[in-house]
Amino acid sequence: VEDPTGPAGSDEDRAARVALTWLAEPGNRAMWSMVQESDAPGTLDRLLHGDIPDDKLRSAVLARLGGGRLVDPRRLAEATMRRAKRLGARIVVPSDAEWPRRVDELATLELDAPGRISQDARPPLCIWVRGRWPLGETLERSVAVVGARAATSYGIQVTTEIAFGLADRGWTVVSGGAFGIDAAAHRAALAADGRTVAVLACGVDRPYPSGNSSMFEKIAETGLLISEWPPGSEPLRHRFLVRNRVIAAATAGTVVTEAAARSGATQTMSRVFALQRPAMVVPGPVTSAMSVGCHEMLRSRPDATLVTGLEQVLETVGRMGEYYAEPARGPEHQRDSLDEESALVLEVVPAAGSAAPEELAARAGLPLRTVLRRLSLLELAGLVERRDGGIALPPFGAAADRGTETAG
Amino acid sequence: VEDPTGPAGSDEDRAARVALTWLAEPGNRAMWSMVQESDAPGTLDRLLHGDIPDDKLRSAVLARLGGGRLVDPRRLAEATMRRAKRLGARIVVPSDAEWPRRVDELATLELDAPGRISQDARPPLCIWVRGRWPLGETLERSVAVVGARAATSYGIQVTTEIAFGLADRGWTVVSGGAFGIDAAAHRAALAADGRTVAVLACGVDRPYPSGNSSMFEKIAETGLLISEWPPGSEPLRHRFLVRNRVIAAATAGTVVTEAAARSGATQTMSRVFALQRPAMVVPGPVTSAMSVGCHEMLRSRPDATLVTGLEQVLETVGRMGEYYAEPARGPEHQRDSLDEESALVLEVVPAAGSAAPEELAARAGLPLRTVLRRLSLLELAGLVERRDGGIALPPFGAAADRGTETAG
Repeated sequence: VEDPTGPAGSDEDRAARVALTWLAEPGNRAMWSMVQESDAPGTLDRLLHGDIPDDKLRSAVLARLGGGRLVDPRRLAEATMRRAKRLGARIVVPSDAEWPRRVDELATLELDAPGRISQDARPPLCIWVRGRWPLGETLERSVAVVGARAATSYGIQVTTEIAFGLADRGWTVVSGGAFGIDAAAHRAALAADGRTVAVLACGVDRPYPSGNSSMFEKIAETGLLISEWPPGSEPLRHRFLVRNRVIAAATAGTVVTEAAARSGATQTMSRVFALQRPAMVVPGPVTSAMSVGCHEMLRSRPDATLVTGLEQVLETVGRMGEYYAEPARGPEHQRDSLDEESALVLEVVPAAGSAAPEELAARAGLPLRTVLRRLSLLELAGLVERRDGGIALPPFGAAADRGTETAG
Repeated sequence: VEDPTGPAGSDEDRAARVALTWLAEPGNRAMWSMVQESDAPGTLDRLLHGDIPDDKLRSAVLARLGGGRLVDPRRLAEATMRRAKRLGARIVVPSDAEWPRRVDELATLELDAPGRISQDARPPLCIWVRGRWPLGETLERSVAVVGARAATSYGIQVTTEIAFGLADRGWTVVSGGAFGIDAAAHRAALAADGRTVAVLACGVDRPYPSGNSSMFEKIAETGLLISEWPPGSEPLRHRFLVRNRVIAAATAGTVVTEAAARSGATQTMSRVFALQRPAMVVPGPVTSAMSVGCHEMLRSRPDATLVTGLEQVLETVGRMGEYYAEPARGPEHQRDSLDEESALVLEVVPAAGSAAPEELAARAGLPLRTVLRRLSLLELAGLVERRDGGIALPPFGAAADRGTETAG
């Protein structure tokens, strides 16, 4: 969350964030830390004066600035913002009411999974939006549905059923706009007259691939096209990997329906795992190359949840969605987020008898470590107890509490 | 293991075991406890004199004996044994060298999984065999490959590849002789000129279903037909469920390639889970009813191992097979069995860095509880240590030990 003492949300702040995105790719760790320290205009000043504490960032910025011979980043940013306005695109920054709060959790990735996350997975500095819905509200009840470009008819079928059903039940379907699974997910949501968001790795004025352009036009009308890169930006190869962290972070959970081994979709899922969000994987024929990535994740990740269709996706993200749909929000973010997982763990404790923590983890679709942490808190609060070598609800009281919480 | 002071292995012992199988279905808990207490001839005496401590067993036995008007169970047993000899079938009892020791682990099921195992899952009292290989040796390096009768072409294809490959590499393929997946597994093993064992729910002289009779004849020639029921026994419906525990217990691990929801194959797997044996599940299209049971197990059982083909099956059972192929056996059974799992856990600890216990469990294909227990012992032995919030190999020494163990 931004420091409210800075000029957050001002035109200067917005322009500075656009300029910073031009000086280093989104997600840059050193850049993000500087903005936390000095706010966006202050960081831009520091960069332009060569006050750059990180070597890698310094050489990137100096290369872009070209020794001062090139255009002033501030002017470039202002021109970009004018152009975007003409195109019907707006820029959203963290101090805006429509900022999608979930993406800020990218800031904590390293703490949760040491050594596993690249240095370039920090939260976005700004998000460009084309479409008339408020960004944060649209993403609140959202599920990412992603997968292979070279999808099979099986993958398209399963994706269509899941995405149509999600959109039909009021969930926003988020994907990356690519051919194959991504396009099937967007199209199914459009077919259900639901909302869909394409998270792009290029400018929202020229969504890639152009083969999907009529689909992108429909999305711009009824959903949202979003990007961290300003209008006019090219879909450079590495940007897809940078973009994937936003798909993972902006949604309540991610479903991968088909994925080749070590593909873009599995990279997106690695972010989902690191964020400890519901990571849902659809299995397929072991004879299909497009399911190899899915099966690898199901084999190697105890926190991957195998889902076979819409019902199990809804079961996995459903309770979270209900939580996010509740009005209370704001500075209690940290505490609410904890309650969400605890409530989920509490809900999967059997009404009668007991269950082992690993069973609860499997049912809740949460990592075992998370479940153990939540169980400690729930136990302290007297909402669960250890019985018969497992976790059980206490004889009286807690069940009633749970009922209230579920109904609320 | 039988009490060596009894008349174990004598004709009287064999005949008594045949008679006991006639008086109550195999696996009967009360019967098995009586045999442990009083040996087989002693138990038969007690039953014939009405000294039956268990109510359910007493009414079953009295119904069979029909108030003494029917044939003497001892004579019936002797006649059965003579008839079996003419048919080329032999009876194997626990004191025989060829007794498959693994099935005795059924005796401990209840201790490991309270409340989950029916009372009728006790070890066999005897096993009828048709075929020329020693039973125990044949089952030592064996994998069960089981699944749906109404198999799809996908299931048949995957089953055939796995079973052929196992047989080709010297593993015995065990299955239940049914249409569909079972028959595909047997036939693939026969095609590989490998060994296969059909575990029947009826007499070995009249294997069911008769539609597979030419296959059964080939199995009798090159592999084994085995059953707990004496020659002439009918394949009664409930016997398939009783039989399934032997498939689970006699093998180093079980693969299910296709299974409908709550089917015979999933019941077999419930025994495999309870025995903490490798439980391998092949996923399939979520659109196929014959993969629903597989996906349910993968969702509900953290100790199920998703396998996509032969290589992963061999990886899961391979080390165990190597262990079982080693000469040292006998009374050290308990200790060896512990070493086997510990060695497996040790092998999956990464050479560099650390891994969480749940990752080790996923890699080793073992339940988390088992892994945690083994890790405590390995830690005590100084072979692993806790580092960076995970489990790691110690800087020196242990890696060399591990190398030796792997090579041995």
